[in-house]
This record gives sequence, structure tokens and C-alpha cells, in this order.
Amino acid sequence: MTNSSNQVYPVIWHNDSVSLIDQTRLPNEYAFVEIHRSEDMARAIKTMIVRGAPAIGVAAAYGMYLGAREIKTSDRHDFLENLDKVAQLLRSTRPTAVNLFWAIGRMMKTAYETLGTVEQIKQTLFQTAQNINTEDLQTCQAIGDHGLAALPTTPQKLTILTHCNAGALATAGYGTALGVVRSAWREGRLERVFADETRPRLQGAKLTAWECVQEGIPVTVITDNMAAHCMKQGLIHAVVVGADRIAANGDTANKIGTYSVAIAATAHNIPFFVAAPLSTIDFELPDGSQIPIEERNPEEIYQIGDTILTPSNVDFYNPAFDVTPAELITAIVTENGAFAPSALVQSQVKQMA
Amino acid sequence: MTNSSNQVYPVIWHNDSVSLIDQTRLPNEYAFVEIHRSEDMARAIKTMIVRGAPAIGVAAAYGMYLGAREIKTSDRHDFLENLDKVAQLLRSTRPTAVNLFWAIGRMMKTAYETLGTVEQIKQTLFQTAQNINTEDLQTCQAIGDHGLAALPTTPQKLTILTHCNAGALATAGYGTALGVVRSAWREGRLERVFADETRPRLQGAKLTAWECVQEGIPVTVITDNMAAHCMKQGLIHAVVVGADRIAANGDTANKIGTYSVAIAATAHNIPFFVAAPLSTIDFELPDGSQIPIEERNPEEIYQIGDTILTPSNVDFYNPAFDVTPAELITAIVTENGAFAPSALVQSQVKQMA
Repeated sequence: MTNSSNQVYPVIWHNDSVSLIDQTRLPNEYAFVEIHRSEDMARAIKTMIVRGAPAIGVAAAYGMYLGAREIKTSDRHDFLENLDKVAQLLRSTRPTAVNLFWAIGRMMKTAYETLGTVEQIKQTLFQTAQNINTEDLQTCQAIGDHGLAALPTTPQKLTILTHCNAGALATAGYGTALGVVRSAWREGRLERVFADETRPRLQGAKLTAWECVQEGIPVTVITDNMAAHCMKQGLIHAVVVGADRIAANGDTANKIGTYSVAIAATAHNIPFFVAAPLSTIDFELPDGSQIPIEERNPEEIYQIGDTILTPSNVDFYNPAFDVTPAELITAIVTENGAFAPSALVQSQVKQMA
Repeated sequence: MTNSSNQVYPVIWHNDSVSLIDQTRLPNEYAFVEIHRSEDMARAIKTMIVRGAPAIGVAAAYGMYLGAREIKTSDRHDFLENLDKVAQLLRSTRPTAVNLFWAIGRMMKTAYETLGTVEQIKQTLFQTAQNINTEDLQTCQAIGDHGLAALPTTPQKLTILTHCNAGALATAGYGTALGVVRSAWREGRLERVFADETRPRLQGAKLTAWECVQEGIPVTVITDNMAAHCMKQGLIHAVVVGADRIAANGDTANKIGTYSVAIAATAHNIPFFVAAPLSTIDFELPDGSQIPIEERNPEEIYQIGDTILTPSNVDFYNPAFDVTPAELITAIVTENGAFAPSALVQSQVKQMA
């Protein structure tokens, strides 16, 4: 499921079903899960077999098509009513990533706007899911190249710190933050990636490191709390992270710990970039204060493999995301270019023009 | 080895040898290791069976006595020469904590300054090790009470964030940062402790949480990268951490990640306290730039229990400490009181007066 250059595609339409890289098994095992039904797709999103905001969007779009295929009616009204239930199921999986709602919304809109038989609507839904997939890949490549152009011009070879995994695994392919890394690597402008391990789920240690190894990109894994020290030592030239949801003013929800890295980067005058498709921007939210923050199971904190890390009778707090205020962000890198957070609304106009 | 009120003493002289709580087995197992020889004490310090700067000092003092006991000569000169080798062995275990060097230095000085037979020197060394132990306990209790007096006066019940374990386990007992927590708890001024898990070795999740549970202090364990988010949510009223070495200007080396917490606390106007005995202050170092930073085995990052977290072929960086600049520190709490970092040198005068 990888091509000869080891490129990574986490969501692939294959043999009339969806193949997902099982990201819960990486880096120790590179395995695929075959998804035939919308319900299984909902479970795969919830259990993070597939994760990363854009990849969730692609997966949910295919999930909508799988759900459509399961509906046994030729009555348009019945069909749309049942499709709405599929949409509800898929929407209920993860609360923070806006791409999930965006992709489901686009699929529902497509269904409503397609004339013709239920069979024809299903065909159009399939095509739309494929388009969402292809467009996301192209979007990531554009983000990567715009990000490269926005990076500091000196030194010639940069060390880039990233948090969590905003890589090929988190998108249709190529990645957003790691898209910038890939473009920099391709053009000989990358010295090395520093990857925060990203507790509690360790997506940096497991996924970002794994992606870099696939393509021979030098990567140093550190614990999250080492990032500020590395900055002080002069080891980091730029920070690039992804986003799960961006408010209209540029406030950015991303994996827990992103805010901490942004504060540290600002304290060291290191540019801090958010790389994300325009679909991540929620123009209806004026700022980040309204972004719902998912709280996940405390087990993610207290257990790794078979090892229990804490004594009994302690409490836990496990927010999966935090919000980085716009003033700590140097630029938001989209498929239309890199924008200062305050220029985002304008970019929307640009996109719609 | 605990008394009825569940107080914790990590280093105990017992049956003509030293009993160490095996801190590598906590929180799952509360076991003791018996140390009869200086070489075993050096290994226990190196492998972190005993850890925490003041506890290392106490352990090293007993280690010096155990070493003295092993020397089979009645010639004073021979004895001192051999004792110096014991000192060298113990000094080579951990490079950052100044208490280690301070305790070994005090023991050597005692040996040189004691008149009489080798047997009498050995007896005086034993008494000095006992004194170092007792004094550290009293010092911690004083630090706790001075720290309590320095805490914000509102709200009445405070939530205190701490990093790593500067607790009873890290000292002769009572703790430094957790000494402040214990004094606050005793006086009804503590709502709850937030404990950073403190990767890579997880001393917060394992040791600080365990200590709190022993005494019924409410504790919430978070991953290190959640601290800034918790501050932004208004969940934290003060930060109290320990120190491994403090330069004369107040720059403080402490467990990796402390610097990151200090930057975040400053960004949120949350007071940031360092609690440490005066023996932690290295008045010969003008600032923190000269403090040697121990780098430890990368295995601490990539393996937890039997679980390997990262793919092969990645690099690691594992600094065990970082340096928090004095300007981020509200006060340094010592057994003589709480001082602004800039007032430290004055406090030295006070101590020597």
C-alpha cells in the first residue's frame, strides 16, 4: 500500500472498501484495516485507527459513501433521512476537528443537490469522497510549498521542531506540518526534524518519527518538556505544527502541548507556523474560546503498554487539545499561501472570489 | 519503615547499614534495598534507586561512612588517601546535583579535621552523616513553612503545580517543593496538587503522586505539555519546584521541563517558586551557564516497561536537567526564608553571620 518511494497514504479506496493504516499499531507494526461499513468507519475514527484532522475528513467522506451504500431504498426522501443518520453517527466520533464536520457537510450537501435516482446519488457521493481525497493531497503539497517559502532564509539548512503528527498519516498524504518539512527536505533546506514525543498518545514518537524514517529524513525524538530547553540551546530554527480547528481570528486548536511550544517559541523569538488547509478554518467562530476541547480517557495518561505509571487513587485531567492564541502564531500556512492570523478573513474572501 | 502517619523517609540508617526505598520500583512496589558498601551506594545513586538532590547528599554521606568502614588501616595518612578514592567514586555518579559534592566535601573535611585514631575518625564520620540526615529533615520543614508564608494569600485554598519529585523521597523527608505543599496542606491552605508526570522518567506520575496518596493529599496527574493549558484555564495558583543546583544569581538547574513550566507561569502571571536548601546554592557559579547538564541514556525516552515507543533509526536527545533563568523565578525558598533571586548572595552573608 506504499509505492516505491515509501510515500504514506493512510486512507485508500481499494477493492470496493477502504483500507486504513492502523495508526494505533505503528511504529511496531505497519498493518491495514479494511473498512466495509459506515459503523466500522465511525469506530475507526473514534479509536484513532485513523487520526489527524484532514485524514479524519477523508475517512468520514468515505464513511458517508459506505453508509449510503448500505441504505436499501429507492425513495429519495427515505434515503436522505437515513443518510442523515449516518452523518450523525460519524459526527459523534470526535468533537474538535472541524474537517470532520466539513467533509460530512459536503457529502450531505452533495446528496441533497444531486438530481436523479438514489443509485445516481450514491455514485456522486462516491465521486465526491474520491475528490475530497485527491484535493486533500494536492492541498497538502501546496501547503508544503507555501510553507517552505515562508521559512526563515537563514541558516541555509534548518532544524524544524514539530509537535504531534501533522504528517502524511494525518492527511490524504504528504502532510501539513510535515508537508512543509517534506518540501524543505526536497529542496535541500532541511537539516533535521525535532519531534516532540507528544504525550499522552505519543504521536510524535510513534508516527512523526516513523514517517521521517520512511523517507530517510533525520529525526531527533525528544520529550515534550525538552522543547524549550532545545530552543534555548539554539537547536531549533522554526516550529511548524498542524491544526484541528482555527477560529476566524487565527486562534488555533491543535494537539495538547501546542500552546506550550508556542509560548516557548515566542519567548525565544523562534517563528511559529501553523500549517493547515482552509477547511480547518471555522470562519463562524470569531475566536478560540468557543472551540470545544475533547477530554479523553485517563487511561491514556496512566498506562503505556502493560505498564501502569501511577499509583491508585489519583485524579487525572486529559484534554486532547489546547488553543494557541493568534498573537503567538507567525503565520498560518494554507493551500492559498501563508497568512498572518489577522489576514485570515481576507484569505476567505480570496478563496471565494 | 514508615511510621503510623505514613511519612516517607527514603534513606534510613538501620541495622548497621543503609535502607533505601527503591524509587525505581515505585509506585507499584514499596520495597527497600539494603546498602552495606560504598560501591553499592554509588551504584544506587547512579541507577536512581535514590534520587533527588538532597536525598543524594544524605545517601552519599552515608556512602562515605560505609567507605570509611571498609578501609583496613590504622594509618591516618593511608586512611585519608583511601577515603579520597571513595569520595571520587561517589562524586562520579551524578554530575548536576551540587548537594552530592557538598555532602562528600563535608565528610572529607570532617575526616581531615578530626584528631585521634582512624577508629575515632570513622565514628565522627558516622555522626556527621547522621547530622546531615537530621539537618536535612529540619531544613525541609523550615523550607515548607517559609514557602507557605510566601504563597499567594488568595484564594484561601490554592492549587499548586509541581514538576518532578522534590518530595520526601528526594530529601531526608518532608521534601522541599512538596514540603511547601505539606505545610500548606497542614494549615488548610491547599486545595489540590497538579503533578506534571515529568517525562522521561515519570517521577511526577510515579513518585509525587505516590507521596500525595500516602498522606491523602488530592492530586491530579497531567502530562507535562498540559501545564500551560491548565494555567490558561485558571486551574493553577502557584508553581513550586525543587532545584538540583542554583547559581549565585538565582539561575536554577532542575529536572528537564522546569524551564518550560517557568516560561508558561510567567506568561500567565502565576508565581513560580523554587524550594531548596541553601546547600543547593553554588555561590561559586556566577550564573547558570556553567552548570553541567547530565545527558542520560536514550532508552529512558524510547522504552517504557516492555513497550518500545519509537521506530528504529531515529536519534534522541536526553538532557536530564535544564536551567531556568532567575528572571522567571518569583522567589527561592530556603530554610532561612524566601528570597528574590537577586537577594541570594545577601542570604549567604546571613547564613554565615
